[in-house]
Amino acid sequence: MAERQHGTRGRGDRRQEILYDESIPTPTHAERALTMVSQLSTGTLCTLGTKPKGHPYGSFVTFALWKHSPIFLISTLAEHTQNLLSDSRASLLVSEAGEGDPLALGRATMLGDCEKLSGDELIEAKAAYLETHPSAKFYADFTDFSVWKLNVESIRYIGGYGRMSWVESPDWEASNPDPIAPHSAGIIEHMNEDHADALISYCLAFSRAEEVSSATMVGIDSYGFEMSADTPDGPKPIRVAFDKPLEKAQDARGALVDLVRKARAQ
Amino acid sequence: MAERQHGTRGRGDRRQEILYDESIPTPTHAERALTMVSQLSTGTLCTLGTKPKGHPYGSFVTFALWKHSPIFLISTLAEHTQNLLSDSRASLLVSEAGEGDPLALGRATMLGDCEKLSGDELIEAKAAYLETHPSAKFYADFTDFSVWKLNVESIRYIGGYGRMSWVESPDWEASNPDPIAPHSAGIIEHMNEDHADALISYCLAFSRAEEVSSATMVGIDSYGFEMSADTPDGPKPIRVAFDKPLEKAQDARGALVDLVRKARAQ
Repeated sequence: MAERQHGTRGRGDRRQEILYDESIPTPTHAERALTMVSQLSTGTLCTLGTKPKGHPYGSFVTFALWKHSPIFLISTLAEHTQNLLSDSRASLLVSEAGEGDPLALGRATMLGDCEKLSGDELIEAKAAYLETHPSAKFYADFTDFSVWKLNVESIRYIGGYGRMSWVESPDWEASNPDPIAPHSAGIIEHMNEDHADALISYCLAFSRAEEVSSATMVGIDSYGFEMSADTPDGPKPIRVAFDKPLEKAQDARGALVDLVRKARAQ
Repeated sequence: MAERQHGTRGRGDRRQEILYDESIPTPTHAERALTMVSQLSTGTLCTLGTKPKGHPYGSFVTFALWKHSPIFLISTLAEHTQNLLSDSRASLLVSEAGEGDPLALGRATMLGDCEKLSGDELIEAKAAYLETHPSAKFYADFTDFSVWKLNVESIRYIGGYGRMSWVESPDWEASNPDPIAPHSAGIIEHMNEDHADALISYCLAFSRAEEVSSATMVGIDSYGFEMSADTPDGPKPIRVAFDKPLEKAQDARGALVDLVRKARAQ
C-alpha cells in the first residue's frame, strides 16, 4: 500500500522547476477570497439547528456582499432564520463553479455571528441585496422577511489543491475585490485569440524559459497575469507582474501593451 | 408598506384553477430528495468547528451515495475531518444546479452523525466512492485519507418555492432513487421535439383543459409526467399518471405510447 500523505511530491524532478520569479507580487489570500466572494451570489449558510439543538445545519441561500459582509434576505418561516434567532453563530461557504475536477476550484468559508439589521443599515443593506437579486423585490417587503448580516471574523480560503490558509478579519477588511476580476474572462479570451505572439514574447523575456512554442493566458489580476507555456519539458506555469498594480480594468490594455514593447526591446 | 407574508395568495382567481386531478400518484418528498441526491456528487458538509469550539463550519466536499448514506473520502489534514473527530454531528447540503432563479431549484439537507468506516464497510464504500469519483484513485490510499459515512437521521427537503418538508429516516430508507431520473432529460427532449401532438392529446384527454394550443413536457418520473399547457387562460401545469409506476427507464416509451392510444381512443 502507498505510504504517502498528500502534499508530498518528488524532489529534483526537472519538470517541477519553476521558471519565473516566485517573489513577484500576487494577490494575497484575503484578496483572492474577497474577489471570489464578490463575484458569487449563492452559497451555503451553516447554522446551529434547534431540533436537535446545536446540530450543524446547512441551507442554500442567496446573498450579496455589502461592505465586506455577506447579507441575506430571509424569512422567519425558514429553518435557518429560526436557527439564527436561537444562536447567531454561522458560516457561509461559497464555491466557484466550473468544469473538471471540483476539488481544484476555489471556495471560501466565512465565519462569524449573524445580526438582524435595522435602521439605516437595513435600508442600505437591503438596497445592496436587491441590486444583486432584483427578483427578490417581489417579496422583500413581506412581513416575514428580514435582512441579516454575517459579521465576518475569519475566513478559510481554499484556492484549489494545496493553496489554502486562514484569513483573519483585519486583512479581510483592508482588502478590496480585484478590479480586473469582472473583466478577466474577456481579457483572457482576447489575448489568447488575437495575441498569441505577445504571450510567447512575455514568456521568453520575463521568465527563465528558453524555448516556448506557444503560451495560453490562464489568469489575470491587478498585479499581473499567468500563462501556461508549452516548453520542451511540457506545459509550465509562468507568471508576469505588471510594473505597478492596476487600479481599474481599463488599465489592463495599456499595461499589457507596455509589457510587449518592453519584452521585444530586450 | 405591504403586509403580506409569503405563501399567501389571492383567492378565486380563475388563473389559479388546477386542471388535473391532484390525487394522482406523485413521488413522495423522500423519493424526490433521494433521487436528487443520487444524481449529485458535490455538496456542503456542515460540521462543528474546533476553533472556536462548536461554531458551524461549511466546507465543499465530493460525495457518493452508498446504501442511502453519503460517503466522503477526506484527509485528516482538512478542517472538516478534524471537526468530525472532535464532534461527529454533521449535515450535508446538496443543491440542484440550473439557470434562472436559484431559489426555485431543489435542495436537501441530510442530518445525522458521521462515522469513520473500517473493515468490509470501508472496502465497499470506498469502491462506491471511487466509482463516482475515479480521479480520487490517485490519492485514495494516501495514509491521511479515510472514508466517512453520514448516517442520515432526517432530511430537510426543499423542492423549490413552497414545496418543502422534513423527511424522516424510515421513509428515506424505504425509498429508492427514481429509475427514470438519469434518462428524464433525454425523454423530455425527445417528446418535445418529436411528439408535440401527443402532448396536446394527453392534455385534452387526461385533464380538465378544454383548449390547448401547445404543450411542453417539463418533468417525468416513474409515476407520471408533467406538462406546461398553453390554454386561453395562459400556461397551466398538467400532470398525467402512468397506469402503473414504471420499474425501469426502458418502460417509459411503451407507457407513453399506450397513453397516446388511450387518449386518442377517447
